[in-house]
Amino acid sequence: MQRKSLADQYCPMARVVDLIGEWGSLLIVREAFFGVTRFDDFQERLEISRHLLTQRLKKLVSGGVLAKQPIAEGAKRHEYVLTPMGEDLFTTIVVLRQWGDKWLFKPSPPPARMFDAFDGSVLAPVEVRSSRGRRLSSWAEVRIKPTRQR
Amino acid sequence: MQRKSLADQYCPMARVVDLIGEWGSLLIVREAFFGVTRFDDFQERLEISRHLLTQRLKKLVSGGVLAKQPIAEGAKRHEYVLTPMGEDLFTTIVVLRQWGDKWLFKPSPPPARMFDAFDGSVLAPVEVRSSRGRRLSSWAEVRIKPTRQR
Repeated sequence: MQRKSLADQYCPMARVVDLIGEWGSLLIVREAFFGVTRFDDFQERLEISRHLLTQRLKKLVSGGVLAKQPIAEGAKRHEYVLTPMGEDLFTTIVVLRQWGDKWLFKPSPPPARMFDAFDGSVLAPVEVRSSRGRRLSSWAEVRIKPTRQR
Repeated sequence: MQRKSLADQYCPMARVVDLIGEWGSLLIVREAFFGVTRFDDFQERLEISRHLLTQRLKKLVSGGVLAKQPIAEGAKRHEYVLTPMGEDLFTTIVVLRQWGDKWLFKPSPPPARMFDAFDGSVLAPVEVRSSRGRRLSSWAEVRIKPTRQR
């Protein structure tokens, strides 16, 4: 099936989906957050083909989400670790998980909850706020304005 | 290519990715947020095949993200509108867009910015906070605990 690459589209969402929106890519990122670094461990946990995993990892590395590095100095085997750009998907992972917890297990409760390791309280639902602190509750409250220069 | 459905996995992220993680599904949701409701309009804006769009819409409808309804009482044509579950992807859309704006246009600035339609200020970066208000900055600060009952 021919699929058009969206990366050249001048839209942030299209670029995001092109990079991490493919089937399984976000699950690779999730495993990386859980500390998985080796190809074989990704493969075992995600149960996807080695061919597909290779493709996905290559794209995440070339896109800057993961870095591929030797497991030790001079070693031939390598591992995949989150870059600062990848670590910055933290908020995305939390928000997607909260959405899934809220909607995808009804009428059962979600299988697990996220807590703050430091203060011990459950995570609050993530909110969208303006830089003046006003809470936005829907897309209708958002205006998109083109950046000036160019 | 055979791909395993992840929906039965007992993990929120796997269920989320199964529902909206497929190539293009989040872009359909984005278009719905921008007010697109008709099949032909989705098709024109996303430039994907009618076959693929049909598959994606069917999955989003059966998953509860979009509702398919007649464009008017008794009408034969129908439209696709966000359900409350779909509207609740608002935070996800904002967070993914902020991530893209931050990382995917360097060294250029992002093409556009999001503003609060009411107070006029730019949206603040979305933050993860505990229910006691502490800000979490990485996944290392999150603990996952299984829900008790069952």
